[in-house]
Amino acid sequence: MKTAAIQKEELIYLRIANNIEHKINNEVIKLGDKLPSIREMCREHGVSMSSALQAYYVLEGKGLIESRPQSGYYVCYSNKRFPKKPETTQPVYSTEVQDTETIINKVYAEIGTKKNTNFALGVPAAGLLPVAKLNKALTHAIRSLDGGTEYGLIQGNEKLRRQIARGSFTWGGKLDEDDIVSTAGCMNALSFCLLSLVQRGDTIAVESPVYFGILQLAQSLGLNVMELATNPTTGVEIEALKKALQTKKIKLCLLISNFNNPLGSCMPDEHKREVVKLMEKYNVPLIEDDLYGDVYFGNHRPKCCKTYDESGIVLWCGSVSKTLAPGYRVGWVAPGKFKEKIIKTKRYHSVSASEITQEAIGDFLENGRYENHLRKLRHTLHCNSMQYMRCISEYFPSDTKVSHPQGGFIQWVELNKKINSIKLYELAVQQKISFAPGSMFTLQKQYNNCLRLSYGLDWNEKVENALKMLGRLAKGML
Amino acid sequence: MKTAAIQKEELIYLRIANNIEHKINNEVIKLGDKLPSIREMCREHGVSMSSALQAYYVLEGKGLIESRPQSGYYVCYSNKRFPKKPETTQPVYSTEVQDTETIINKVYAEIGTKKNTNFALGVPAAGLLPVAKLNKALTHAIRSLDGGTEYGLIQGNEKLRRQIARGSFTWGGKLDEDDIVSTAGCMNALSFCLLSLVQRGDTIAVESPVYFGILQLAQSLGLNVMELATNPTTGVEIEALKKALQTKKIKLCLLISNFNNPLGSCMPDEHKREVVKLMEKYNVPLIEDDLYGDVYFGNHRPKCCKTYDESGIVLWCGSVSKTLAPGYRVGWVAPGKFKEKIIKTKRYHSVSASEITQEAIGDFLENGRYENHLRKLRHTLHCNSMQYMRCISEYFPSDTKVSHPQGGFIQWVELNKKINSIKLYELAVQQKISFAPGSMFTLQKQYNNCLRLSYGLDWNEKVENALKMLGRLAKGML
Repeated sequence: MKTAAIQKEELIYLRIANNIEHKINNEVIKLGDKLPSIREMCREHGVSMSSALQAYYVLEGKGLIESRPQSGYYVCYSNKRFPKKPETTQPVYSTEVQDTETIINKVYAEIGTKKNTNFALGVPAAGLLPVAKLNKALTHAIRSLDGGTEYGLIQGNEKLRRQIARGSFTWGGKLDEDDIVSTAGCMNALSFCLLSLVQRGDTIAVESPVYFGILQLAQSLGLNVMELATNPTTGVEIEALKKALQTKKIKLCLLISNFNNPLGSCMPDEHKREVVKLMEKYNVPLIEDDLYGDVYFGNHRPKCCKTYDESGIVLWCGSVSKTLAPGYRVGWVAPGKFKEKIIKTKRYHSVSASEITQEAIGDFLENGRYENHLRKLRHTLHCNSMQYMRCISEYFPSDTKVSHPQGGFIQWVELNKKINSIKLYELAVQQKISFAPGSMFTLQKQYNNCLRLSYGLDWNEKVENALKMLGRLAKGML
Repeated sequence: MKTAAIQKEELIYLRIANNIEHKINNEVIKLGDKLPSIREMCREHGVSMSSALQAYYVLEGKGLIESRPQSGYYVCYSNKRFPKKPETTQPVYSTEVQDTETIINKVYAEIGTKKNTNFALGVPAAGLLPVAKLNKALTHAIRSLDGGTEYGLIQGNEKLRRQIARGSFTWGGKLDEDDIVSTAGCMNALSFCLLSLVQRGDTIAVESPVYFGILQLAQSLGLNVMELATNPTTGVEIEALKKALQTKKIKLCLLISNFNNPLGSCMPDEHKREVVKLMEKYNVPLIEDDLYGDVYFGNHRPKCCKTYDESGIVLWCGSVSKTLAPGYRVGWVAPGKFKEKIIKTKRYHSVSASEITQEAIGDFLENGRYENHLRKLRHTLHCNSMQYMRCISEYFPSDTKVSHPQGGFIQWVELNKKINSIKLYELAVQQKISFAPGSMFTLQKQYNNCLRLSYGLDWNEKVENALKMLGRLAKGML
């Protein structure tokens, strides 16, 4: 356990680092400027050598400063240099849908090739996961469940549900354990929601671009998908949603509210409140996929649409697949007024979920290990995202646009319209680099010049070189 | 590890026990007869005291003989006294279906009440499962997978699939690991098959009576269900199946081929072959639910329809939920020519299955522990089934009929038509006894005088008394 003194120390160096970052971004300290020496820092802030050094390490990790041998630290980057963000998407809606299966299968097949630098997979690299501590939690779970060989409750393991409910307080969720149904991962939660609430031929509304797994699931169930205009910062356009609802065709809405995959957007509180009001007005259920909400780079966990849900119309879904253990298949849904339906669907399709992994995650959360782990993970991913931003601005064609996500794993890159990202993908694979081409994220003919990059990798020279190569390949296509 | 000598010893006492059982059933030794003393047995068969004693213990476990203090062993029961079997069912088929939800929910709610003697749940009691050995396998899996936190292959854990494939040789399966897709339990396998192959409004054919979970899943997917005449010994009536297929309405057939739930029937090899031929002729896929096939009481594992499947039209489904660990949620399907469809459905609805429990089961199977465990489990369940048979013949109304399953966990009891088993259930629950009323196993108005008993419980006086009470309550309703 960390002592209070060490925790205070941590806060100090982060405060100093944030302070300097702010000055760099506002050009109070300019590119190329030399920063005070460690000794000067200690004097100036009244802190230890270690705190001063830590502060510089943080800034170095984000790619904002660099150390020059026998000289000191210099500002080498500022977010003024960030590439521009893409505009709000203007999705088309035609009933004639494109075949995304081929490219998705191609990308999936490459994922198995472990030697590639893989920007295609939206999960943290194994090195970022607390494997040893999770193993302990599993061993503990085996003991406390006496093996976990018996069927668990259909609604799900109680310890897990209690911890998810407790965690909901960080986003104003007011859930209790009885409000939650466990699932085998978040896609399984979305599947249960769709199986419970819509039928073949129904139309659902989603953001555009949207995670391809959602499109494939919807198509396999015979659903029509309406893709809505979405802003890379603030998420789905409220006006677009309103218009879709007014047509009365929409039977259900599915949104990734926080650090959307693939756009990286995070809906502001006001938008979330507004969306819930609209859902209530038109009596349309909202599936809220909140898979990335815990991985925020700012000071606070973003709220959810569920935060503003008084009538139970929001089905809030999540999992630990993006933060702890994809292979455990532990997810959940707080289905509001649709709880009984969801429990039935779960019973019909899978009886119950694996007891032992649920208990292990419940245990991990109960002991505060999750919060400790997340603090490190967020910091690492935040640094990674800034390194990517720097590399894209340095190596990619100058008219490249990229989303500025404030959390999650994923950047959305918009290249010059002349560049077809499937062709770029094919060139990249020859260089042992993989990413997700933009056309995977829509059923319409669009986003052919876009791509999704995951920054959930361990940052190192190989990754920087891969981004450099990708930039060079893109330039070559102009 | 057992030595060869000990294994031979085991075979000897079982051979002696079987020999005596045969004589009892053929009335060579009659009810009330005194059996040879242990000393005489040793002389007669040239075996050790321990083998002779073991043989009598086996017969005592089956309720065929009893020991009288200071006197010896006497024959107290013979299968000549077994109650009659029910006739082949004659299911009606009307499109107007009955509501089974209410009674199913009632029975499910009672299952939580641990103090009840629970004949309703079709799984082995926790005491019959090799929990300590499974825990070891889990711990081993944590090590060999390095935590199992990463996504596994979508098709499923390789070690598990290899072992399932290897096991298929016991029923002439000729599968290899690439033929198998893992699932989160057997219901999940059935769900993936139905989601992949049929659509709302399609008609599927099943046995009648049929496991209620299958009916609920089918209804929730908007399928029509045609229930087919089924014999309590030989399973689905081939003629009834043929007639249904000739109507061309059947899109898919789902059969529990071995030790059917709830009828206990096991299709003879010839019927299995015939069914596969019919499926091929009418080009209708067969989902074969082989959940109980490993729990046979005879000398050989029964074959499957899949054994005779040359064209890949059979989707063979199984799990370890009835033999090892319901709570692990490990199942599988060998989907024949529908493999790619099933893998896609799995990917869409749940990405992959829990890696750690799959690996643990793979490990357990690999080390031959499964076969060792099954040998004991089969023996226990066989003894239990005979004890139930004896109790039903002793305590239930004399016109009670009961299936004579040669494997599995489940007996189907047909009472006098005047007895409504839902009313009987309500009386039983007041006496802290639970079972599954017959009307749960059909969508039509039938089987109201039937009930399903599970003998997967630890056999003891409490269980005998509960059966006695059930018989008394039934008699009281005449």
